[in-house]
Amino acid sequence: MTVLILTSEEDVTADMVVVHLNASGVPVVRLDPADLTGGVALSGEYVHGAFRGHLSSAGRLVSIEGLRSVWIRRPGTAAARAAVPSGWLTEEAGQALYGMLRGCDARWMNHPDAARRARHKPWQLRVAQRCGLPVPATLITTFPQAARDFADRYPDLVVKPVSGTHPQDPPRAVPTSRVAPDADFSAVAFGPTLLQRRVAKRADIRLTVVGERLLAARRATDAEAEVDVRFDTSDVPWCPVEVAPRVAEAVRAYMREAELAYGAFDFAEDADGTWWFLECNQSGQFGFIEVDTGQPIALGIAEWLARPASWRPSRVNGARAQVP
Amino acid sequence: MTVLILTSEEDVTADMVVVHLNASGVPVVRLDPADLTGGVALSGEYVHGAFRGHLSSAGRLVSIEGLRSVWIRRPGTAAARAAVPSGWLTEEAGQALYGMLRGCDARWMNHPDAARRARHKPWQLRVAQRCGLPVPATLITTFPQAARDFADRYPDLVVKPVSGTHPQDPPRAVPTSRVAPDADFSAVAFGPTLLQRRVAKRADIRLTVVGERLLAARRATDAEAEVDVRFDTSDVPWCPVEVAPRVAEAVRAYMREAELAYGAFDFAEDADGTWWFLECNQSGQFGFIEVDTGQPIALGIAEWLARPASWRPSRVNGARAQVP
Repeated sequence: MTVLILTSEEDVTADMVVVHLNASGVPVVRLDPADLTGGVALSGEYVHGAFRGHLSSAGRLVSIEGLRSVWIRRPGTAAARAAVPSGWLTEEAGQALYGMLRGCDARWMNHPDAARRARHKPWQLRVAQRCGLPVPATLITTFPQAARDFADRYPDLVVKPVSGTHPQDPPRAVPTSRVAPDADFSAVAFGPTLLQRRVAKRADIRLTVVGERLLAARRATDAEAEVDVRFDTSDVPWCPVEVAPRVAEAVRAYMREAELAYGAFDFAEDADGTWWFLECNQSGQFGFIEVDTGQPIALGIAEWLARPASWRPSRVNGARAQVP
Repeated sequence: MTVLILTSEEDVTADMVVVHLNASGVPVVRLDPADLTGGVALSGEYVHGAFRGHLSSAGRLVSIEGLRSVWIRRPGTAAARAAVPSGWLTEEAGQALYGMLRGCDARWMNHPDAARRARHKPWQLRVAQRCGLPVPATLITTFPQAARDFADRYPDLVVKPVSGTHPQDPPRAVPTSRVAPDADFSAVAFGPTLLQRRVAKRADIRLTVVGERLLAARRATDAEAEVDVRFDTSDVPWCPVEVAPRVAEAVRAYMREAELAYGAFDFAEDADGTWWFLECNQSGQFGFIEVDTGQPIALGIAEWLARPASWRPSRVNGARAQVP
């Protein structure tokens, strides 16, 4: 049984996992859907009530029914590097590849449906609330008056995008920023705006979840630190930190509800030691955490991917099986 | 409790359903996400572990927690009609709207995740096989030799797109076409190609599923009829037809596996009376069937949407609850 990794060639984080899989002798095929229909080919046959499918990458052939797991890391757009790329070819190639893979019994990290849903920040906040994670007071609105009322109740606010990354070329992360006390909210009417009570944080927390394993890292900050951890230039290293049982339980509930096998949670730790949920990135990077803390994240992923697939007759898409 | 319908203004099929909902006194709000942030506005607040959200359309305000069901019919692209439309605004508005709705307890026809998955034809064929529906021998491949071998085994073939509609402007349906006996398959290497044994059909079958209700219609064809029902100019009307218990059972299994509340199945009936599965369109039109057969499809949808929402503490996204 083979592990299939869908990612781009230059993904060094995937390399870290492949090293472990190779060391344990588990067969791995790695391919980038962008290479359809160049270096990557596919074929699937539906005859007499059965399916037989194959993928081929760099001359290696793998049976789709022989996949134990699929890791969707950072795949390129299907057929983006074809000889004559087009929107139509991307659509056809993407449907063919993911359509066939969706029918197989492999375990997914993460299933494409779960991954897509998990990107919705308004949904993340609701799931976090329901699972018992503390969520800073948040407003998402197109009503200027609602924004003004919220700013009256919570005078120290940050603003961040609802959707994440600005789709320019190259895509650009939009930083979380503090809202000035005298902000004019009239432009809120032209686009949904996410306002959130700023947590006066004494540390950033990154909690990486791989299956049932929780690995938390902490980095102390000072009160005036950059609010957006991605733009922080601090050279304070990340250190391993214990996860309180109540937080662990809530995070596991979140993973179950989200049907995720992998998630990178960002929290802000306040002066009382409370971890405030900021977001859960279902494809969050982990290499920098592993380097700083020595936590075996890549190994954990490799071990999760290497587990045998189990046949579940009651489920077709396998989404239910991501969290053990 | 309100029924929310997401569709475009000129959707006359939705009108048919709204008539029934109005007649039964169920509150309905209908909006097109394309009208964000013009005629449509939204606001959601996450405070003290709870969520309170609202949508407003044409001056009517509806509470998101007060939704009993959401019908995603033919919604426009989010914010497409905004004063200054952009890819970024579409992303932000779409995430805000669907992200909030995904967190609510309403029943969906169909849930966006189920709808997206259901569009994958390779996955449809696999689910149909597993549920026991007869599927014509099919090959999806980028290997010219696999196509040649398949054509040797099944000399009478049709070719159709893997993904459905060509994304030109306006989008264009690509017809299913017969494959000439001496076809050259070398171009298969440049794009996934779907080949399927042609069913010598004596009738087209359209089976519309609404929740637990199955409504089948049949239209006789002659052997040389157009293979693609969408391009058939025949004026033979559709007539109601019984569904064999074995087919009904398989179709219900398909709906459960696909987590769909609505589906329009297309079958080809052969000389033996066997219904061969061609596809299940999760957003298939039904007006023309209702007009020909008098089958109460719009009423069935209205009744399904009007059922009270039920609180399911074990599930957050509600996808599981689409099929009663």
